[in-house]
Amino acid sequence: MKANEMLRTHPNGATHLDWAVVASTIEDAMSCAQTCTSCADACLAEKMVADLRRCIRLNLDCADICQTTARVLSRRTEPVWDVLRAQVGSCFRVCGECADECAAHADMHEHCRVCAEECRRCEEACSRLLKALEEAAISARAAAPSA
Amino acid sequence: MKANEMLRTHPNGATHLDWAVVASTIEDAMSCAQTCTSCADACLAEKMVADLRRCIRLNLDCADICQTTARVLSRRTEPVWDVLRAQVGSCFRVCGECADECAAHADMHEHCRVCAEECRRCEEACSRLLKALEEAAISARAAAPSA
Amino acid sequence: MKANEMLRTHPNGATHLDWAVVASTIEDAMSCAQTCTSCADACLAEKMVADLRRCIRLNLDCADICQTTARVLSRRTEPVWDVLRAQVGSCFRVCGECADECAAHADMHEHCRVCAEECRRCEEACSRLLKALEEAAISARAAAPSA
Amino acid sequence: MKANEMLRTHPNGATHLDWAVVASTIEDAMSCAQTCTSCADACLAEKMVADLRRCIRLNLDCADICQTTARVLSRRTEPVWDVLRAQVGSCFRVCGECADECAAHADMHEHCRVCAEECRRCEEACSRLLKALEEAAISARAAAPSA
Repeated sequence: MKANEMLRTHPNGATHLDWAVVASTIEDAMSCAQTCTSCADACLAEKMVADLRRCIRLNLDCADICQTTARVLSRRTEPVWDVLRAQVGSCFRVCGECADECAAHADMHEHCRVCAEECRRCEEACSRLLKALEEAAISARAAAPSA
Repeated sequence: MKANEMLRTHPNGATHLDWAVVASTIEDAMSCAQTCTSCADACLAEKMVADLRRCIRLNLDCADICQTTARVLSRRTEPVWDVLRAQVGSCFRVCGECADECAAHADMHEHCRVCAEECRRCEEACSRLLKALEEAAISARAAAPSA
Repeated sequence: MKANEMLRTHPNGATHLDWAVVASTIEDAMSCAQTCTSCADACLAEKMVADLRRCIRLNLDCADICQTTARVLSRRTEPVWDVLRAQVGSCFRVCGECADECAAHADMHEHCRVCAEECRRCEEACSRLLKALEEAAISARAAAPSA
Repeated sequence: MKANEMLRTHPNGATHLDWAVVASTIEDAMSCAQTCTSCADACLAEKMVADLRRCIRLNLDCADICQTTARVLSRRTEPVWDVLRAQVGSCFRVCGECADECAAHADMHEHCRVCAEECRRCEEACSRLLKALEEAAISARAAAPSA
């Protein structure tokens, strides 16, 4: 994926935010979205599908939320930091829940084992990014206008 | 749109949450998503597109976030209330920002006037739903397990 | 939904295509997307979920394809007619398949009955729009450049 | 991205279709979707945004169509081959158009150069997959029922 290269070639200049951290979160969120879509479908095909309802539902939510978060983060033009924070916060939350759920039956289903890892990686990326967004907001306020 | 009929015919029984409030938020979010996609495109075609960058960017974010929120809310199976609250919170935030931005040039562009109204309606629906989710969580805790 | 109002207030002038037909297809596709997301989730909660795998899978595909088709159709700036035709063609196809599948167990599940109707309505809207796109292409070629 | 691993760990058995080819198309489509979202936003921030309207519009269409195609391809449960063919065909078409458009100003904008390459790669992946789907349909018919 070319998220870093695309953010680097954006015409907007430097900001208080490290865009490499954003790029890495975008890639984790895209990967998590794909894995969750696959995991929902693999769970649906399992004999014990009736026991996997909570997992399928969280997979579908996580895929939707990760995908939207990756899109919002892919934009560098005129960012509204509060919107970014709220959406990354929602992504952090759903990834944590989905990671826990998939981990609970990772022993039985290889697809849930892989999915739990991807969700955990994205949860951690969101956590790092939330901190970076916090610091960028502080630096921006200390400096003056522009973020 | 059939959001209410679909939520009513779901096999899950009654919960502490009023699903008619959810259905109405789904419809407002779907409508807002469509309007924002249209408004971003209409702004892009305006002669003064260079002055509408912030509006286009917020329109695109708002369309993505509203659409994902409508999907998450359309699911009644095994809801995780914290995930719902976080995503509806993000939707409330972006709709408020996008409504303000579009309202600022509603006099010049009819599409921005309509879009500002749709965003405000969805912002208010999210606000009502956040309150309903709060109350459902309290009732559920007071009663016992399950929401 | 305000699809018609938004397409009418677009700064681009008249074209060989009747945008009211496009607006009506957008609204049918958005409604179908929401209904299919709901129906997939209601099927997932049914006791007989194992018998509803094909329905859930088609519901999920139909929701994704309808949503993307509605977005592509919501844009009036610099349309590429071949892209529109291909995407509306894909939407026509998935709506037809999903309508057939849901209709097959409409007697047992009220949500499938509603969903079959919504899919059929969207299939018919796509069929009408494909014809309108064809005619617009012919008129445009007869006249000269621009569509 | 773990598309191949996820498709391999799916409970469904062997089919006439080589799922490694599907996995590689999913990854190209996800990468193309992210790049197009970024490119639309970078174009929007350029001084000459008014000259980039066609590019932005195609970028947005391409991002939506690639994302939906990746989702549909990520599902192995009960595939409807005609739906897959139609959606991959639409993806092939929009990627070709977007690659041509971005290539036309790749000299001026580095983000368009990267985006043209990503779109071309996805166009080629879709072309290969369309052939594989064709062959799988023939083998399936020659053998007997089920694909």
